[in-house]
Amino acid sequence: MIYDVYSEACPTRLVLDRLADKWVLLVLGRLTEGPMRFNHLRREIEGVSQKVLSQTLKRLERDGLVTRQAFPTVPVTVEYAITPLGRTLSETAQALARWAETNIEAVMAAQAAYDAQAGGQTSRATT
Amino acid sequence: MIYDVYSEACPTRLVLDRLADKWVLLVLGRLTEGPMRFNHLRREIEGVSQKVLSQTLKRLERDGLVTRQAFPTVPVTVEYAITPLGRTLSETAQALARWAETNIEAVMAAQAAYDAQAGGQTSRATT
Repeated sequence: MIYDVYSEACPTRLVLDRLADKWVLLVLGRLTEGPMRFNHLRREIEGVSQKVLSQTLKRLERDGLVTRQAFPTVPVTVEYAITPLGRTLSETAQALARWAETNIEAVMAAQAAYDAQAGGQTSRATT
Repeated sequence: MIYDVYSEACPTRLVLDRLADKWVLLVLGRLTEGPMRFNHLRREIEGVSQKVLSQTLKRLERDGLVTRQAFPTVPVTVEYAITPLGRTLSETAQALARWAETNIEAVMAAQAAYDAQAGGQTSRATT
């Protein structure tokens, strides 16, 4: 079967929607460095809430991109690791993060120019 | 200055959030093939509404990733084109779409396995 993300009914559209998520990209990026406990991940990814990180990890586990292993300590220790499939995705995801880090200044300059120009304009048609 | 997407206060975080958007990835992908009118883009990207496409294009224009050119026809014709900066991003974005198309079957198999297993389990701690 041929998959096409531009087709509305194609299941790849759902996956693309899932992957195109800031937290997914950041979690996978950190897990490429090695398995990590929940609380460690949470500290590494500034600004993520416990609830959102927990949901993100559960979705990634369901998608086969991350594994979850519980150790019978008191309290239970849970470690997350990236799968080989997740690693192939992470390389792509990392490229997006790197793009943001490399080109942020160009984007901010464009935004400033746009805002300066838009301030002097009346409303325009958008279609 | 050194930018780091893992820092909450870093402006790259905002950009990453913006880029990690299904519609952004799909719009940039189509515009790499050449400039396109609004309605043509809308037909090409199945499932996008006029409002969402319009908002997406406006944000991309503000970020310096797309240019908008109006022609004095009746009614006005508006054409969108990708900028050199947008093209560098699109290459990365395309890789994400390709990943989804290549690995969708592995992801769907993982989801089916997870759901089958989860059905037989009681609730588990997530942290």
